[in-house]
Amino acid sequence: MTKQERAMNTRHALIRSAAQAFDQFGYTRAKLAGISAGAGVSSGALHFHFDTKAAMAAAVESEAARTLHALARHAHRKSPSPLQALVDSSHVIAQQLRWDVVVRAGFHLNCRTAHHSETNLRQEWLECVRRTLERSATHGQTPPQAVREELTATVVGATAGFEALARHDRSWLSRHTLTGLWHTLLPQLATPKALTQLQPAGTESVINATGTTADRPAGADALRG
Amino acid sequence: MTKQERAMNTRHALIRSAAQAFDQFGYTRAKLAGISAGAGVSSGALHFHFDTKAAMAAAVESEAARTLHALARHAHRKSPSPLQALVDSSHVIAQQLRWDVVVRAGFHLNCRTAHHSETNLRQEWLECVRRTLERSATHGQTPPQAVREELTATVVGATAGFEALARHDRSWLSRHTLTGLWHTLLPQLATPKALTQLQPAGTESVINATGTTADRPAGADALRG
Repeated sequence: MTKQERAMNTRHALIRSAAQAFDQFGYTRAKLAGISAGAGVSSGALHFHFDTKAAMAAAVESEAARTLHALARHAHRKSPSPLQALVDSSHVIAQQLRWDVVVRAGFHLNCRTAHHSETNLRQEWLECVRRTLERSATHGQTPPQAVREELTATVVGATAGFEALARHDRSWLSRHTLTGLWHTLLPQLATPKALTQLQPAGTESVINATGTTADRPAGADALRG
Repeated sequence: MTKQERAMNTRHALIRSAAQAFDQFGYTRAKLAGISAGAGVSSGALHFHFDTKAAMAAAVESEAARTLHALARHAHRKSPSPLQALVDSSHVIAQQLRWDVVVRAGFHLNCRTAHHSETNLRQEWLECVRRTLERSATHGQTPPQAVREELTATVVGATAGFEALARHDRSWLSRHTLTGLWHTLLPQLATPKALTQLQPAGTESVINATGTTADRPAGADALRG
């Protein structure tokens, strides 16, 4: 292993340990000493990579953003229709939020800091939902009389709420709960014909391609590449 | 004014000032010195009423809970049907969250502490939604084939999401946005016949009775009585 590879590994270990500390104690109460210990490195090694706790948080946020972007791109490439891609994205993102501590902590941090940070993940999700409904209407799969601004707000509100509620009870991000949401919403989002083609539980092949990264951090890291 | 009335006034002023500090800076960064100054009292007076910052936060939470309970009771007493009461409650609660800093700060605090506090406002809202849909089904206004557990989760998720999103952009709790949510959801919650009787924008008389308390703290305080 080259010196550069070792440095990259240490950096990854620090980001993961920081995410665990932020997830468990919150940003304010997380301690740098605990983060370096969690990564199995000295506090000198931590300071070689990150000047401040804020710099660590920024690294966790940007790692989370990278993973989430990759998941959304994957779903939109593989799903059979715009609406199905929206459903599939929500499932793979929820799965990742449940099981990948870097994504979870990075997303939480971003919700706090988004108003003065470059990346605003909730805003990106809102724009993704809005564009998807536009595309779906163009393809004749969303009824022309649907009030897309209302539908967008409902989808964004409900998914943001599930994420917020899952901070105390992760079952809000379970596949079962999310499937129930799409059962409820899809009849408003899709024409009756399009509805018969949609799977509220997600497209198995899309979800399975990313799903197992959940329990395999190495796989999740590969996705981030 | 008796000595007891003066003490009550000071206590109210301290609770409002604490809520403003928690709302603006967050619980951790709010300072007792700023809270007593904001209430126009000495730090001795603050300590006469509250031993610790945690005690102040508990008072803000319980004041918020009292207001929210009163608003929900009012809507359920005055609205013409269970589903309309749910819509009306959501409007008056959203209105209060936008304009009443004690309710807003108390609700936020409760979201953080609910898992080890006596009152869990989000859980109470979930139970209120669940009971309302049960009652509505009993009255024949919600279709018997509706999957009430899914509908409950969708309503709770979307409203929790609007509250969370409104922390950075209050328009998520505007009457317009909430009306759009009910436009989208009511066709799933109500039979076609019941739907024609429902007002997604809320019942004017119910909302107006409590609405103006928003800009008038004295009115809001009266409601809490």
